[in-house]
Amino acid sequence: MSAPDDHLREERLQREPLLQGHFLKVVRDTVRLPDGRQATREFVLHPGAVMVVALADDGRVLMERQYRHPMGQVMLEFPAGKRDAGEDSLACARRELQEETGYTAREWAFAGRHAPTIAYSDEVIDIWFARGLQAGERRLDPGEFLDVFLADPAELMADCRNGRLIDGKTITGLLWLQQVMNGSWFLEWRDNSAA
Amino acid sequence: MSAPDDHLREERLQREPLLQGHFLKVVRDTVRLPDGRQATREFVLHPGAVMVVALADDGRVLMERQYRHPMGQVMLEFPAGKRDAGEDSLACARRELQEETGYTAREWAFAGRHAPTIAYSDEVIDIWFARGLQAGERRLDPGEFLDVFLADPAELMADCRNGRLIDGKTITGLLWLQQVMNGSWFLEWRDNSAA
Repeated sequence: MSAPDDHLREERLQREPLLQGHFLKVVRDTVRLPDGRQATREFVLHPGAVMVVALADDGRVLMERQYRHPMGQVMLEFPAGKRDAGEDSLACARRELQEETGYTAREWAFAGRHAPTIAYSDEVIDIWFARGLQAGERRLDPGEFLDVFLADPAELMADCRNGRLIDGKTITGLLWLQQVMNGSWFLEWRDNSAA
Repeated sequence: MSAPDDHLREERLQREPLLQGHFLKVVRDTVRLPDGRQATREFVLHPGAVMVVALADDGRVLMERQYRHPMGQVMLEFPAGKRDAGEDSLACARRELQEETGYTAREWAFAGRHAPTIAYSDEVIDIWFARGLQAGERRLDPGEFLDVFLADPAELMADCRNGRLIDGKTITGLLWLQQVMNGSWFLEWRDNSAA
């Protein structure tokens, strides 16, 4: 009996650590291909991340401008960050929003997941929506520099159209935002102000 | 005189090669932060890639199902691939579409760019649209296994909503597809059948 994806699936035979950097961890797996031959797959091991689409009461959303060294430029992004070891996804979303923007939120809703780099990373980003925002003090990590501002979703769509906004996770957030705003997709909001 | 982003920009001081794998190349840069302190940034050096949203005459789009080892599962994706050294973006799009799906296209239009992993890769994916499709023979690379099929855009949006489709570049392609189909964004088509 063969499963429907047996002609596509690869089986991991072996794992070799390739790099343990300050930040990046890379492995090389040896896999058995569907035709029985072997190949190697190199990829980044990532703890996972979260992104927050935070809705202000006036319809704008919280955005960041941050210099991204690999891109050599300042990028437009929704607030996001890596999960600490064992950290719950919503706890991470609340922490990252507060640390990077100073804002807390009364209500939260899980939207979906975004896999940025399926060819060479196992990273998955959980996408959260937040509303009932309250401004506060931010606590950036040492060496973290970013601007926070409120943006009109229509302007962000225009930025995507004209190439000013190319960050993948943020574009996924914009698709979700558009579908939620036009009533096509629904979110299940929960009150987490006391959490 | 200070530029508007001087409070965000990092300056590269030094580059150290960290990994030269069969597939992945990783470097560690030392940078000067906006406050004058130093930090290191590790990231993947990538040649860039293309993705193709190929429109069939009946309104469906060409999709692939491919096992992605880092994700440990079969993923739904638009056809895509890495650029060869010095390869023109459209030439790469034509090549990848034909190799992976067998299809050629009469008309092409450049849509936009997608940066999948701005924290730890310099990869940028050029997004192309294609129409006037003609089926042909595909020529997969050795060790490449994937299913090709035509999909209804509305079903792909539902797959994104319900979490079956989480590939970031493909979600960006869906946003473009939706905006083009509903007339919000326009593409400049050019005839490339003879190229």
